[in-house]
Amino acid sequence: MAANKEIPYKIYLEENEMPKAWYNVRADMKNKPAPLLNPGTHQPMTAQELEGVFCAELVQQELDNTTAYIPIPQEIQNFYKMYRPSPLVRAYCLEEKLKTPAKIYYKFEGNNTSGSHKLNSAIAQAYYAKKQGLKGVTTETGAGQWGTALSMACAYLDLDCQVYMVKVSYEQKPFRREVMRTYGASVTPSPSNTTNVGRQILAEHPGTTGSLGCAISEAVEAAVTQEGYRYVLGSVLNQVLLHQSVIGLETKAALDKYGIKPDIIIGCAGGGSNLGGLISPFAGDMLRGEANYRIIAVEPASCPSLTRGKYAYDFCDTGKVCPLAKMYTLGSNFIPSANHAGGLRYHGMSSIVSQLYHDGLIEATSVEQTKVFEAAEYFARVEGILPAPESSHAIRVAIDEAIKCRETGEEKTIVFGLTGTGYFDMVAYEKFNNGEMGDYIPTDEELEKSFTTLPQVEE
Amino acid sequence: MAANKEIPYKIYLEENEMPKAWYNVRADMKNKPAPLLNPGTHQPMTAQELEGVFCAELVQQELDNTTAYIPIPQEIQNFYKMYRPSPLVRAYCLEEKLKTPAKIYYKFEGNNTSGSHKLNSAIAQAYYAKKQGLKGVTTETGAGQWGTALSMACAYLDLDCQVYMVKVSYEQKPFRREVMRTYGASVTPSPSNTTNVGRQILAEHPGTTGSLGCAISEAVEAAVTQEGYRYVLGSVLNQVLLHQSVIGLETKAALDKYGIKPDIIIGCAGGGSNLGGLISPFAGDMLRGEANYRIIAVEPASCPSLTRGKYAYDFCDTGKVCPLAKMYTLGSNFIPSANHAGGLRYHGMSSIVSQLYHDGLIEATSVEQTKVFEAAEYFARVEGILPAPESSHAIRVAIDEAIKCRETGEEKTIVFGLTGTGYFDMVAYEKFNNGEMGDYIPTDEELEKSFTTLPQVEE
Repeated sequence: MAANKEIPYKIYLEENEMPKAWYNVRADMKNKPAPLLNPGTHQPMTAQELEGVFCAELVQQELDNTTAYIPIPQEIQNFYKMYRPSPLVRAYCLEEKLKTPAKIYYKFEGNNTSGSHKLNSAIAQAYYAKKQGLKGVTTETGAGQWGTALSMACAYLDLDCQVYMVKVSYEQKPFRREVMRTYGASVTPSPSNTTNVGRQILAEHPGTTGSLGCAISEAVEAAVTQEGYRYVLGSVLNQVLLHQSVIGLETKAALDKYGIKPDIIIGCAGGGSNLGGLISPFAGDMLRGEANYRIIAVEPASCPSLTRGKYAYDFCDTGKVCPLAKMYTLGSNFIPSANHAGGLRYHGMSSIVSQLYHDGLIEATSVEQTKVFEAAEYFARVEGILPAPESSHAIRVAIDEAIKCRETGEEKTIVFGLTGTGYFDMVAYEKFNNGEMGDYIPTDEELEKSFTTLPQVEE
Repeated sequence: MAANKEIPYKIYLEENEMPKAWYNVRADMKNKPAPLLNPGTHQPMTAQELEGVFCAELVQQELDNTTAYIPIPQEIQNFYKMYRPSPLVRAYCLEEKLKTPAKIYYKFEGNNTSGSHKLNSAIAQAYYAKKQGLKGVTTETGAGQWGTALSMACAYLDLDCQVYMVKVSYEQKPFRREVMRTYGASVTPSPSNTTNVGRQILAEHPGTTGSLGCAISEAVEAAVTQEGYRYVLGSVLNQVLLHQSVIGLETKAALDKYGIKPDIIIGCAGGGSNLGGLISPFAGDMLRGEANYRIIAVEPASCPSLTRGKYAYDFCDTGKVCPLAKMYTLGSNFIPSANHAGGLRYHGMSSIVSQLYHDGLIEATSVEQTKVFEAAEYFARVEGILPAPESSHAIRVAIDEAIKCRETGEEKTIVFGLTGTGYFDMVAYEKFNNGEMGDYIPTDEELEKSFTTLPQVEE
């Protein structure tokens, strides 16, 4: 601890300071996240049931609500060393430009080829699949960050990787598709004719351009119908937040190294993987009564699950083949406006994040996409990193909080998660550059209609 | 010095270990690189003549053959801290996969939004332009790495940035164009109707898709015909290699920190900016007789200026508005096959690199593009970074040298420059993934014809 030591632009941990165990925030939660339910019986999913879909060791992690620290296998630690520790950046240039007394830090997860934090869980899930002797894994991807991350992990471990990519993204983001192919993955536009659920959806909605929920259904079916395959998922699940805790652990270690205590911690929230990972150790401090922080989840106004959703059991996918999860949800049929370009499109939210929000540990706010892209462009010009639209939700609120500090004169310490880069999102940036971007906020009527699709579950 | 200290996966210098001065290898060269000549009089360009095109302080750097260390202004040091020091990576995974006793390191310059080392000189050139009170700068860009880097630097300094982008790239790489626009640059496809030389080329070659040499001519004209503008260039020039010496200085400092002495240093060579920057301090050691290394320049077989070019004065641009430079050249009309996808397309080579090669300090080799993309894909899967095609030329030869070590049992230390990432090169990767990539090597006859365009200069 060296409170008055000058802070470098980028704080890198030494390799021997990197986390050797993931932190499982559930262990410190008094109100545990609600269990996954069997969609048929509405009974909690057993390990045995889950093991048909997921790797055995990942099922244990999914169900473990009590072990606070779970060791990171050495092989995964080694892989992490290829692209981690990620820097905790002091945004000196942004502070100066904003003329704010606030101290702004961001944890930058974009310095790897997948372009985001997704790789942290991809390598873990691929590792356990390999360890179990499987041939390969299946998954879905929307914009492609998760699919790319999984392709990289599988290439490293010589594991087959089958990606169902939402058709509209497959067509509009051929470069993401090619990155996955370069890493040896097979990429199928979803819905496809390769699964029953895909054929069914195509029959019912000819010409559909697909959705994440639909691609999930296809990937799950592909996993359970092929010998030696399991399904993996890049967000929402407890196991994913566990792996992503590496973000928060590194952040906390870097701050501690310089005796810095954050006042506000900000993360963008789609399914909750980055947010949950970033805040886990800080939320743990709060749950144990050891510290207090303001934690803010930022979501798109066009897909506002925390701020306008219902806290209820819901389907995780369109085909309704997955377990039910209790979460803040907009209804499994909800699809954000086609004009929404900012990512974070999932209809629900991680059960852990949902419970923490429900218990008042986390605040949530939503922002409109033109404001998000304004912040993204501003940040790019000042801090030199072109951010992912997803990450820019957090940037927007960090800038707003820093401006408030300018007005009040408070020297708050703000930490936010910069989850990734926007190099594959230039179609969205082009729209913004050309002044063709609008804001698309669902009406109350639309949401009410969407909520009618929620399953009736007695708790 | 700690020869037996365990080497981390990534060696990061501390911020206070970063270079505070650039190293000017010309100071240690007995045979200085030949001066630029006035294309009309064939007399060495004076500072006054050059100042019509370039910023005054950059002209001094261009002409300074004697000062070994030139201080890096504090503002540039601060900008460097946003994305530097870049990591020197120990390629443990690659070594293991290749089963080689060689120790492989690469200096990775791709972790910034421009995606390459180009930013190192862009910020320097923009800084001196700003300091001189200019309104803006003009430049050309091919694939777009340099244009992106310059846009970033100009956005940071509030300087206008006008980029002439080779038309075929402008159309085929809309995303690069949008990154530049996001950073506030204006991007014009070249040849264009905005300059005399552009109109002339369009009249002579209607429907042409442009070339780098042509875009240079337009950018120079735009600079000298607008009040308060100067022209900047991303490679070839002495000043660029000076700024890029930060790569080599950091590399050497990182190696020294762990008591590592490289045996082989490998860099890809287009105009020579990365290669020259990486090798400068090592070449300095050799020139002063203090050490010996094997230095290998790697160029594409389809654009082989060092290995098959002539060492002669030549035009730097198509419109012949620039000074003449003595260099290894294929002739200023030489354009690599349209099927060449690996970058490094410039017809000539930095005068410094040319002189060092001519004096036998550097070796050169050329590689075919299918071999380059094979190496790129292999590297991506093993080391987790999708490399730029340009950088992959160095990867190819580093792998080949490591395989030789496996055969001989030698534990050589190999260092290569990984100049950037391939995120904007997915069209080329797609071609490779689909098995549609070929090799395109100019015939002796083609080269002989191209050499006939060399100017007659008495030396």
